[in-house]
Amino acid sequence: MLDFSSSDFQTWERFYRARFFNSLGGYKSLNLLGTASSTGQTNLGLFFSVIHVGANPPLLGLLFRPHTVPRHSLENFRESGQATLNAVHADILAPAHQSSASYSAEESEFAATGLNPAYREAFQAPYVQESRLSAGLLYREEHRVEANDCIFVVAEITWVRLDEKALFDDGLIEHSAIDSLAVNALDSYYRPAPFRRYDFARAGEDLKELPWPPNPK
Amino acid sequence: MLDFSSSDFQTWERFYRARFFNSLGGYKSLNLLGTASSTGQTNLGLFFSVIHVGANPPLLGLLFRPHTVPRHSLENFRESGQATLNAVHADILAPAHQSSASYSAEESEFAATGLNPAYREAFQAPYVQESRLSAGLLYREEHRVEANDCIFVVAEITWVRLDEKALFDDGLIEHSAIDSLAVNALDSYYRPAPFRRYDFARAGEDLKELPWPPNPK
Repeated sequence: MLDFSSSDFQTWERFYRARFFNSLGGYKSLNLLGTASSTGQTNLGLFFSVIHVGANPPLLGLLFRPHTVPRHSLENFRESGQATLNAVHADILAPAHQSSASYSAEESEFAATGLNPAYREAFQAPYVQESRLSAGLLYREEHRVEANDCIFVVAEITWVRLDEKALFDDGLIEHSAIDSLAVNALDSYYRPAPFRRYDFARAGEDLKELPWPPNPK
Repeated sequence: MLDFSSSDFQTWERFYRARFFNSLGGYKSLNLLGTASSTGQTNLGLFFSVIHVGANPPLLGLLFRPHTVPRHSLENFRESGQATLNAVHADILAPAHQSSASYSAEESEFAATGLNPAYREAFQAPYVQESRLSAGLLYREEHRVEANDCIFVVAEITWVRLDEKALFDDGLIEHSAIDSLAVNALDSYYRPAPFRRYDFARAGEDLKELPWPPNPK
């Protein structure tokens, strides 16, 4: 086993260090965040920092690093109060990754990557037509991380558009059925395969495996 | 495509709804959080809500839902200022899942599941001996989510213990090399396989694929 401590971290080259700590926590989900500015300019950002916050009301957390590309997304989300979350599947990985390039505020990542913006009635933020799972988000609150000025935004899910293949009888959105990808660090993409499903664990009882997959809806 | 909105969400049965929104954001990393109380009682909690916050200083975010099992972890983390994050690989999935059962504060999940606590010099929170990637965390700050009383804790990484197989030349911790798992909802575990690696994207330039995997360290 290797062993490192703070005094080692400080000697590491900047990109080595960034990749190490970006990958330490494990796999992340891969989504595109769609927003529009007050003048209607669309923006699309590749987003690795989504966290489940609650189901009732349905809430997601989104962490923004203010000095990286998705800052247009944050500005638009704050001003318009709306954004969309769009799952990335294998067939749209290349344009999704390309959207992480640094485009000016006047240039839409939709036009630059060839992904198509689409609109839901009475919702101004665009979603990604090609995505198999999109959700409409309403801005609820934000918190500034004092340690490094990141912004943690909490959003409420107000609508969901979903390929029927992904929704199973018990409410599970089974991401491998729509070929959703996972990511590690900023550049390494993975395809997850179903491994095991367990029933709710109870103290003093043996684990029960559940059939995989459950019946599709 | 299926289409749902807030008025639909409200009609859903509680567990269906929880599973749906827990899986909406996509794959999550799978870790065990190790802590100790002021009296030295160890605690181990299965944890799906880790987010990368920064590399310099190295920071992670951890979201705690106050009304679910890992609340002993949060109390211990606040009081002692220390915790460990331990990646879950396929061979320890069964005891890791079992640790999500509701044990009393007097009962350690280590003893109940058979996973072994181990200690690093001058650090009181136990790590999981069987894990192939463990990190020591220092409590830095917390924020209360007003919308549902979740607690977002920011922690600094102070040491890392890592199987050498996982560390690549460029700093990437390549989780599939140590068989780390991902999770969806609360019960569905996945094994991710390397899919694609891209160079940093630049506006107006074609994407460049990188070799996979990079040279192991």
